[in-house]
Amino acid sequence: MKNNLFGEIPADLPEELVDVLCASQHLRIERIVSHGQASPPGSWYDQEWHEFVLLVSGRARLEFADGSPPIELAPGDWLDIKAHTRHRVAWTDPVQNTVWLAIYYF
Amino acid sequence: MKNNLFGEIPADLPEELVDVLCASQHLRIERIVSHGQASPPGSWYDQEWHEFVLLVSGRARLEFADGSPPIELAPGDWLDIKAHTRHRVAWTDPVQNTVWLAIYYF
Repeated sequence: MKNNLFGEIPADLPEELVDVLCASQHLRIERIVSHGQASPPGSWYDQEWHEFVLLVSGRARLEFADGSPPIELAPGDWLDIKAHTRHRVAWTDPVQNTVWLAIYYF
Repeated sequence: MKNNLFGEIPADLPEELVDVLCASQHLRIERIVSHGQASPPGSWYDQEWHEFVLLVSGRARLEFADGSPPIELAPGDWLDIKAHTRHRVAWTDPVQNTVWLAIYYF
């Protein structure tokens, strides 16, 4: 009945790993594991749903299209990204896994 | 714009600390910090909403009214407790903070 966010992560991650942990009509919870991946330069997420995102382990940096300062994320950091807030993952740590819990909702 | 799950925790926690981090019509996300607290004996949570719960740090044990085995939780462990699944927190670590992320939804 329980699962662990750090389980079932392949040793090699050529691409980000995305697992849907839970989904309902108004919600989707994903575990995302990054290992050095970033959004392509000039590419922005522009999402229909809000996203509450928690960095569980690792390190990352987010950027925003509105020019607000980049945000460095360490374990325990979270933010609530409102729908259509254009953002990108500028950097994730290349030497360790970065585990995210992403909660998309509306 | 960012916050940290481990921030703003008083040194003494005579009661559990509950902070609502995010709320919408179909969702409520809480940070809960326990320090040895448990549900009163024989007292069960019976919730209208589903609850996805992640143990971020610390240790805890959950029990269920249907007699299924208790679940020991360590960092990274999560489970999805469906509405009206009667459960209680049987134990949380008395020597460190246990930080939970609870996502109530329907």
